[in-house]
Amino acid sequence: MKQVQRIGVSLETELLSEFDELVAEQGYHNRSEAIRDLIRNRLTAEQLAHPDTRAVAAVFVVYDHHRPQLAQKLIRLQHSHLLKTISSMHLHLDHHNCLEVILLRGKVGDITKLGDNIVSLKGVKLGRVNLITAAE
Amino acid sequence: MKQVQRIGVSLETELLSEFDELVAEQGYHNRSEAIRDLIRNRLTAEQLAHPDTRAVAAVFVVYDHHRPQLAQKLIRLQHSHLLKTISSMHLHLDHHNCLEVILLRGKVGDITKLGDNIVSLKGVKLGRVNLITAAE
Amino acid sequence: MKQVQRIGVSLETELLSEFDELVAEQGYHNRSEAIRDLIRNRLTAEQLAHPDTRAVAAVFVVYDHHRPQLAQKLIRLQHSHLLKTISSMHLHLDHHNCLEVILLRGKVGDITKLGDNIVSLKGVKLGRVNLITAAE
Amino acid sequence: MKQVQRIGVSLETELLSEFDELVAEQGYHNRSEAIRDLIRNRLTAEQLAHPDTRAVAAVFVVYDHHRPQLAQKLIRLQHSHLLKTISSMHLHLDHHNCLEVILLRGKVGDITKLGDNIVSLKGVKLGRVNLITAAE
Repeated sequence: MKQVQRIGVSLETELLSEFDELVAEQGYHNRSEAIRDLIRNRLTAEQLAHPDTRAVAAVFVVYDHHRPQLAQKLIRLQHSHLLKTISSMHLHLDHHNCLEVILLRGKVGDITKLGDNIVSLKGVKLGRVNLITAAE
Repeated sequence: MKQVQRIGVSLETELLSEFDELVAEQGYHNRSEAIRDLIRNRLTAEQLAHPDTRAVAAVFVVYDHHRPQLAQKLIRLQHSHLLKTISSMHLHLDHHNCLEVILLRGKVGDITKLGDNIVSLKGVKLGRVNLITAAE
Repeated sequence: MKQVQRIGVSLETELLSEFDELVAEQGYHNRSEAIRDLIRNRLTAEQLAHPDTRAVAAVFVVYDHHRPQLAQKLIRLQHSHLLKTISSMHLHLDHHNCLEVILLRGKVGDITKLGDNIVSLKGVKLGRVNLITAAE
Repeated sequence: MKQVQRIGVSLETELLSEFDELVAEQGYHNRSEAIRDLIRNRLTAEQLAHPDTRAVAAVFVVYDHHRPQLAQKLIRLQHSHLLKTISSMHLHLDHHNCLEVILLRGKVGDITKLGDNIVSLKGVKLGRVNLITAAE
């Protein structure tokens, strides 16, 4: 069981009431939940700014699945970096286009570089690398 | 077969050589590939800025899988929005933490709101909603 | 004098100690200060996502000041939108390049569009529009 | 006079026509201008990702000017880092609030840290550090 501590925070009444509105809109149970999320996001952003942090990234690529070589190249590129790729998910967007989400694990610097290479493959129409979370 | 056109672009020699370096580093086949990607990213960013654009978003949540109710709530929330959720992928990060990637399809405004709700579920430690691509 | 309220927030001990480190590093006086900032940033981001919010934006342009027409065009464009431009600041970066920071006030949608026009002026080498804060 | 080169770029007709629309909307003179801007933004983003790049950053702070000590602290903090601060601009937002834009020059790592310290000053309601451009 994780230990929990309770701290006091002072806020202008007006700021608090605006915040309470946001908390309700987003469906949070209570303020503590929402504040913990703000803190965790901030800490994660800080960690992910360092190239040596171990992290998980998601690479999104949209491509035309009528180019079978691309699918093969994507698979091969993932296997050649076996330790870094964790998992991938494939989705048909429309008659022409697929979306592939590839999760990579490794140092921020390495997985960003591998992600850039995937995104730059010939036939990839749209691609992005998103660092998600520091891991361990 | 898609029709392709060739246009001329003038660039300062210095800018061009810096760009060529980037093109090589990222593993692009040629400049046209890289420029097409820049253009597509720009157009997509433009489209995703409008709440009515139909799009695909990825929601990432990191949570402690020892909280079984959360997993159920996540599944229930996805089913209650059946038309919007497309697919999800589950991944063990470490002994305590799971990463779940949930793809949503719908209007930018709607899927952002649903994503915010998922991220705000009690027990979700870290969450983010990323708009990926306009669809149709 | 603004009314201030005190609320209680519960946090896992580990998360709290990581947060305390960040608070110290950034030079905050205390946790309340840091948490208020996180909340204000989140609320502002929320407001700035709506095109009708009245806001202040900063437009940055880097350009070669040996192109005198550009400087004139920049000035003229600002005057023709007199109500939206508030102020600007000029800075010599090096022998060739100037940086100009232009503050715009108005609806998010309008000032973003005007900012895009400024950034697109012939001779502007680098430009960006940053929404800063909602202003009544 | 800078040397200019002309390169050929091939694009799907559909992508080209969407791009031409954007070029017109934003007020660009021609496609080359717009493509050069996309390339420069991409290169700048790449450079600014390295903590050792020399760069210019803008720090925005919103604060209540009825807190005179804060204004003094802001000025003192800028003077104590004389080489890094270049210039600042002050703006009255409303009866209570001021916006101050402070330009810093130095290594990405250093000016980000200094910016974080400014943003964390007691009394600053809203603050952000934006890296603008690599310099020299």
